[in-house]
Amino acid sequence: MTKTRIETDSMGPVEVPQDRYWGAQTQRSLKYFRIGGDLMPPEIIHAFGILKLASAQANLELGKLSPHVAEPIMAACREVMDGKLAGHFPLHVWQTGSGTQTNMNVNEVVANRAIELLGGALGSKTPVHPNDHVNMSQSSNDTFPAAMHIAAVLMLTGTLIPAVTAMHAELARKAREWNGIVKIGRTHLQDAVPMTLGQEFSGYAALLEDNLERLRGCLPHLCRLALGGTAVGTGLGTPPDFAELATSRIAALTGLAFVPAPNFFAALSAHDAVVMASGALKTLAASLMKIANDIRWLASGPRAGLGELILPANEPGSSIMPGKVNPTQSEAMTMVCVQVMGLDAAIVFAGSQGNFELNVFKPVMIFNLLTGMRLLADACASFTVHALTGLTPDVNVIARHVGNSLMLVTALSPVIGYDKAAEVAHKAHAEGTSLKEACLELGYLDGETFDGLVRPLRMARPHEAG
Amino acid sequence: MTKTRIETDSMGPVEVPQDRYWGAQTQRSLKYFRIGGDLMPPEIIHAFGILKLASAQANLELGKLSPHVAEPIMAACREVMDGKLAGHFPLHVWQTGSGTQTNMNVNEVVANRAIELLGGALGSKTPVHPNDHVNMSQSSNDTFPAAMHIAAVLMLTGTLIPAVTAMHAELARKAREWNGIVKIGRTHLQDAVPMTLGQEFSGYAALLEDNLERLRGCLPHLCRLALGGTAVGTGLGTPPDFAELATSRIAALTGLAFVPAPNFFAALSAHDAVVMASGALKTLAASLMKIANDIRWLASGPRAGLGELILPANEPGSSIMPGKVNPTQSEAMTMVCVQVMGLDAAIVFAGSQGNFELNVFKPVMIFNLLTGMRLLADACASFTVHALTGLTPDVNVIARHVGNSLMLVTALSPVIGYDKAAEVAHKAHAEGTSLKEACLELGYLDGETFDGLVRPLRMARPHEAG
Amino acid sequence: MTKTRIETDSMGPVEVPQDRYWGAQTQRSLKYFRIGGDLMPPEIIHAFGILKLASAQANLELGKLSPHVAEPIMAACREVMDGKLAGHFPLHVWQTGSGTQTNMNVNEVVANRAIELLGGALGSKTPVHPNDHVNMSQSSNDTFPAAMHIAAVLMLTGTLIPAVTAMHAELARKAREWNGIVKIGRTHLQDAVPMTLGQEFSGYAALLEDNLERLRGCLPHLCRLALGGTAVGTGLGTPPDFAELATSRIAALTGLAFVPAPNFFAALSAHDAVVMASGALKTLAASLMKIANDIRWLASGPRAGLGELILPANEPGSSIMPGKVNPTQSEAMTMVCVQVMGLDAAIVFAGSQGNFELNVFKPVMIFNLLTGMRLLADACASFTVHALTGLTPDVNVIARHVGNSLMLVTALSPVIGYDKAAEVAHKAHAEGTSLKEACLELGYLDGETFDGLVRPLRMARPHEAG
Amino acid sequence: MTKTRIETDSMGPVEVPQDRYWGAQTQRSLKYFRIGGDLMPPEIIHAFGILKLASAQANLELGKLSPHVAEPIMAACREVMDGKLAGHFPLHVWQTGSGTQTNMNVNEVVANRAIELLGGALGSKTPVHPNDHVNMSQSSNDTFPAAMHIAAVLMLTGTLIPAVTAMHAELARKAREWNGIVKIGRTHLQDAVPMTLGQEFSGYAALLEDNLERLRGCLPHLCRLALGGTAVGTGLGTPPDFAELATSRIAALTGLAFVPAPNFFAALSAHDAVVMASGALKTLAASLMKIANDIRWLASGPRAGLGELILPANEPGSSIMPGKVNPTQSEAMTMVCVQVMGLDAAIVFAGSQGNFELNVFKPVMIFNLLTGMRLLADACASFTVHALTGLTPDVNVIARHVGNSLMLVTALSPVIGYDKAAEVAHKAHAEGTSLKEACLELGYLDGETFDGLVRPLRMARPHEAG
Repeated sequence: MTKTRIETDSMGPVEVPQDRYWGAQTQRSLKYFRIGGDLMPPEIIHAFGILKLASAQANLELGKLSPHVAEPIMAACREVMDGKLAGHFPLHVWQTGSGTQTNMNVNEVVANRAIELLGGALGSKTPVHPNDHVNMSQSSNDTFPAAMHIAAVLMLTGTLIPAVTAMHAELARKAREWNGIVKIGRTHLQDAVPMTLGQEFSGYAALLEDNLERLRGCLPHLCRLALGGTAVGTGLGTPPDFAELATSRIAALTGLAFVPAPNFFAALSAHDAVVMASGALKTLAASLMKIANDIRWLASGPRAGLGELILPANEPGSSIMPGKVNPTQSEAMTMVCVQVMGLDAAIVFAGSQGNFELNVFKPVMIFNLLTGMRLLADACASFTVHALTGLTPDVNVIARHVGNSLMLVTALSPVIGYDKAAEVAHKAHAEGTSLKEACLELGYLDGETFDGLVRPLRMARPHEAG
Repeated sequence: MTKTRIETDSMGPVEVPQDRYWGAQTQRSLKYFRIGGDLMPPEIIHAFGILKLASAQANLELGKLSPHVAEPIMAACREVMDGKLAGHFPLHVWQTGSGTQTNMNVNEVVANRAIELLGGALGSKTPVHPNDHVNMSQSSNDTFPAAMHIAAVLMLTGTLIPAVTAMHAELARKAREWNGIVKIGRTHLQDAVPMTLGQEFSGYAALLEDNLERLRGCLPHLCRLALGGTAVGTGLGTPPDFAELATSRIAALTGLAFVPAPNFFAALSAHDAVVMASGALKTLAASLMKIANDIRWLASGPRAGLGELILPANEPGSSIMPGKVNPTQSEAMTMVCVQVMGLDAAIVFAGSQGNFELNVFKPVMIFNLLTGMRLLADACASFTVHALTGLTPDVNVIARHVGNSLMLVTALSPVIGYDKAAEVAHKAHAEGTSLKEACLELGYLDGETFDGLVRPLRMARPHEAG
Repeated sequence: MTKTRIETDSMGPVEVPQDRYWGAQTQRSLKYFRIGGDLMPPEIIHAFGILKLASAQANLELGKLSPHVAEPIMAACREVMDGKLAGHFPLHVWQTGSGTQTNMNVNEVVANRAIELLGGALGSKTPVHPNDHVNMSQSSNDTFPAAMHIAAVLMLTGTLIPAVTAMHAELARKAREWNGIVKIGRTHLQDAVPMTLGQEFSGYAALLEDNLERLRGCLPHLCRLALGGTAVGTGLGTPPDFAELATSRIAALTGLAFVPAPNFFAALSAHDAVVMASGALKTLAASLMKIANDIRWLASGPRAGLGELILPANEPGSSIMPGKVNPTQSEAMTMVCVQVMGLDAAIVFAGSQGNFELNVFKPVMIFNLLTGMRLLADACASFTVHALTGLTPDVNVIARHVGNSLMLVTALSPVIGYDKAAEVAHKAHAEGTSLKEACLELGYLDGETFDGLVRPLRMARPHEAG
Repeated sequence: MTKTRIETDSMGPVEVPQDRYWGAQTQRSLKYFRIGGDLMPPEIIHAFGILKLASAQANLELGKLSPHVAEPIMAACREVMDGKLAGHFPLHVWQTGSGTQTNMNVNEVVANRAIELLGGALGSKTPVHPNDHVNMSQSSNDTFPAAMHIAAVLMLTGTLIPAVTAMHAELARKAREWNGIVKIGRTHLQDAVPMTLGQEFSGYAALLEDNLERLRGCLPHLCRLALGGTAVGTGLGTPPDFAELATSRIAALTGLAFVPAPNFFAALSAHDAVVMASGALKTLAASLMKIANDIRWLASGPRAGLGELILPANEPGSSIMPGKVNPTQSEAMTMVCVQVMGLDAAIVFAGSQGNFELNVFKPVMIFNLLTGMRLLADACASFTVHALTGLTPDVNVIARHVGNSLMLVTALSPVIGYDKAAEVAHKAHAEGTSLKEACLELGYLDGETFDGLVRPLRMARPHEAG
């Protein structure tokens, strides 16, 4: 039997586990919301720690909160930020759509921990009250969306962008290293004119570069915080200057350019910045899916596939058959990409469903956005280290594919004319030989002249001096 | 200048083009809803023709409508059904979400055409009134969802199921024809153990067979009609037995098993049968995407791809290069598949947005469902005729891939032991030779014994007497 | 420092925590796949326990596995089924797309636990080998999709269908109880003709009834198992009759009608049964969203909303203001519904991406399907107990809305004529009075006659003797 | 019988309608792609007119095209741009995924029209050849994505942004006009603290302002053109400087800041700029859905709804009942919003499916993007003119809701204390009276003092001097 103590809220007393800091409202939420397995993400709790700390600082500075109450609140908030109170936030994502219960969870934990620091009795609400002091000048309706944005910005700048940047760097490195390797281009899955493997990878790098720009482009709107709007956006119950002051404290604590939202009514009732950030995530997912797919196709084989790239062999592909390396990193990456697209579908739907002064789909929106960022960041990191770094070209296969290609025939046309060139190609195709063999056999050119004309690297870089 | 006449509704007079049968409410809709380019699908108009005819029959039979009014209404409805009045239904999909304006469009056109048949003056509403007579015992709120179901069932049974059935037949034919062609199997895009080309195509056929079952499984719920529920589902304004009688007439006119919905409140306020049918469409799309993708990959090349299948050359792939056949039918098919998934996303979203007694996303739901069915049916027909029928295996390439495969080594293991078998495979892989060459060179087996052991067809059909 | 032991696979030795049963391949997966926080769901592990047990039974019965190896395997499998080895399955969802690593995880755990039961050394693979014995006659490629189906069927029949059934029962109870309460109907959010509250709830019940039918309709295809197809669907490496026998053992163990898939090639390379089941889930989500939305709207207020229903007050809505009950159960439910739609989008996308003999999006597909089922089941249970059971009508508000309604004017028309009836309605609307007041004032009817004509309950049930 | 002439391509002769400018490849596409009803959008044809004109200018300037060929090509291109040849582009969206057939359609039409201008014979390819001259220095693979971007930028800047700007202006006007109207705020659909109607509409305006910023933020990436990359991105077959020159001509022709894509490999093989633009569209759709929903809810009634806003009565809502105005513009708008989300789902899926050097889902991507833009622009224009402009507040209802509100009790607390304030509220709630009545009856305050304390406008603007 867990020991309990009594906590109360406006509906009366509730039994709470003695070793937990949370109070009555958290306990009620645990009772009424046993849905699924997902807890409110720790990033949101961390963001709430920052926000409650900054709010206490602002309330202190504005003379609303006395130092002897503010100090222990701030100390407790730092513990929340540092993850020291991790076991005290047990609520599910699938709770009230305003996130009120999580805001109250934080208020209760901070209050009780502050009381404890002051030597008081847990649950006494004295001398630190969860609503009157910890939630002072705030409402769930403005703190939760503010915490959403803080968490999103921190994960975007601290986790996702660095992971994509590292992957971009590795792709760009490959693009440089492999710039001299001529290979067959493919369009419609069909053999096309030649290019270099470096050019192909430069395309991948360029995709990620643009995605990084898009991700960074989401920051300004995400840096706008709802804090100060309180219940409906009017700021009722806040001292003048609270929004500016508290938000500037958040900026100082994080080193990031947070500002008050220019319109609090919009900031509480819709979350377009989250929807748009999700749009940027799924655009990144589209790029990553293409890159991961290309790489596994280019590594297909070993005998009956394209075989132009060789993946690092991380796990046994087959216990008896050498050369069978399953593209497992691509598989994890592409699964993550489809998941991000699904999460995005839920985000935009949720984002459209606000009514009047409040959108009550906040938890699902931020849960999906943070999940998507985490998945993409982890998958990029894994793919970079475990698939890209050790990736090598099979230059023999690549050369054979170029050498076999009938598309090189276009290089003959200016010299022997279109009709003869086509004849060469048809003969090679019909007989399964190379263009050169066909051309020599037909007697249209000698080998040296052929080689002088058919220079794949030159075709790959038509505007360079060759 | 178009000549006009005056039509009226409860809000007053409106000018309408003289050569059109529609009336005031249609004209107002044209004025207020100029959104996008999509008109209400003709299948819906056709379904309304059936429904209005059946309703007139029922009203006549129940003694509510006199024969001299019912007869011309029924004649006009037959013209609507037959598409003879096609130019008289100009309204957009993006109108009122109940489809009221289209119901009124039909009422107005049928009334005026009936008046004309009786020699009366268009717009006079005498002796046939669009509301009092054509819409008798009905409401937009029950007729539109009934028309949605009628149109969906007719297109499903008359267009989509036949097209999928034909594609299934062609795939099954290929499965039989190619059952003796042994090829390499591929998992994770990597060479795997052998199978037959016929087995591979039997998988495709099986997918479509299951999809046909799923499509047919949608019919019972789609065959339930809302007709008789009128404005909110209570049937206010209908004579007893109207729902049964009118619906039985619809069944008789179409030869399909339409029945009254068991609960009209549900039938007006949600369209789950449409949502589920869309789920079946997108499941079909998932299968078709996989099939179309496989086929274009198997036909990739001609030199630097997999090259196991040869597509019919419908268009020039390259003017100079023979053998380059772009898989354009696969491309159209896969584009259709992604579109169907997008249409489905809108359908389910719309389906969730009903409020109280009415879902007012009806037009977008049925527009997307009918569009999806049409696209899938047309794409299946096109793919069957233009890609599948003329599809041929390149038996040389297929045999080469099997012959080269290192996965056949598993057949040696029982005789020479796992370790030697692995040694053979490693040697072949390292030196780029065949297993047989490596095995002979290592002296583990003679050629005849090797051939006796390594029998790909037997591996493909392990349980058949061989 | 965790103590470790050495485990090996075909790539060599790996250090593994001493107190874990897993082996080398599991450990490698842990190293290479640190993506996100989601572990392979326990339902999949449970299903694998069943499947491995059934396979061992079949192998034993077919004489391939000796009793002294089969017995401890079967004992270990029962522990897996019973959740006794829960801490030994640490792998992530985001791994290889075939689920191979989870299949190997199970093989390794079962083998080591069986070895332990026999008193052997963990990691020795003697006398029970993870591949040769536990995985006998199987491949990841057929076991994982079989486990997907087993897990889906068990959760569908054991969790989701019961939860929806209970919610349906409560809605049907309300429909009966409230069948005499006349209320205003609403279409387009506008006042419409009257109906009863019971009729409204009968619509909700009918939606769930149809959804239950659709959920059950998914079972036949989900009951088809891929087991016996092994690597590519040919059944290579299985004894004849293995598929039939092992599947019949699964049916016996679960009491459910599992059968071998009619076409193994389809069963490995696509997962349409999962896609379609997801389609049924999201159709259910569409219905639930509508129901949960209606209920929160009907309970809006307390003063400036519709106010026809009173929600149970589970948590404080406002500490000072009575009557403010936030519809938190509706909020959790609608968030779950949008999430299910997002998960569905990922499932269908993943389902379309199979190549050749294998779809390698298996983990994300089953993770999303099981997550969706769990969320819907939990949300239905929570909503039923915490929102529906204690829901009560505010009969005063309901009566006031009906009494005020101008739509009742339609009942006067047959007696005083359309024109006078419209005059009454316009007067009442303009002056903000009731129809009765306006009618009496105009002197068209006396109060008794008015009351005799305007009988909302009769309008709500027009075909009943009144 | 349509008269025909013979046109040829590399596969041989084809009969083409005599009165059409298109040639053999267009005719083949008509034969092989009879899928759905959607034609390639005219905006794409218009963009191709610009692009082909600019390319001819560049080729002329670079000395590749002689003036006597270039001049008639440029004249024909102007006719394409001006829509004069509208009947000559009959191809469907559902064609080859590279859009090759539409590029050839344009090449053929321009060539034949140029030939005609020079007095030559249609189909003679002399003196203007569709490939050699009109398509000079180009490939389908770079022209089609360039045309996609040109069309998207033109519609975004010319149609969508202006429509959203106009709607924003109307919302901002309402926000100013209605800034003094105090109303009840609503959160969780429950009565909350007061605000002004102007504040509520300022939130809507702010949403659109941010959306406009997001839409404009898509322009830089959309302004990057693939032109000059030719078949695989290497620019094979183009003179040096062609990309720069042709693109600068496009910029000059349109007055928009088009530049060559920084990496052609990325520009051909992925369309992230389109995916991201679609993300911006659906974010806009989320905002619009919320706004349109709010407005129809606020206008619900007339008697049993919220009734705070009065919609313009565009169509008859009910022939007999006054005051019933269906929110049809909101319905059209919300249907458009769900459609845009569906189109977006298809776009991102398509965008992820590129392989190697080419994404072959181009037509569906641009079709959906242009459709989405058109629908949103039209719906915004319609909503602004037909719903917003004539929208009026029902100040009586609004005042009654504020006056009735129990949330105003918070204003009493500082004077009579929390406990007595709560007592007042409970009494008012229990007895269905106003706070004032309850307070006076309890004798806690006199009427004047009450009115001095309970000042909703001051609560709505707490930081203004009052």
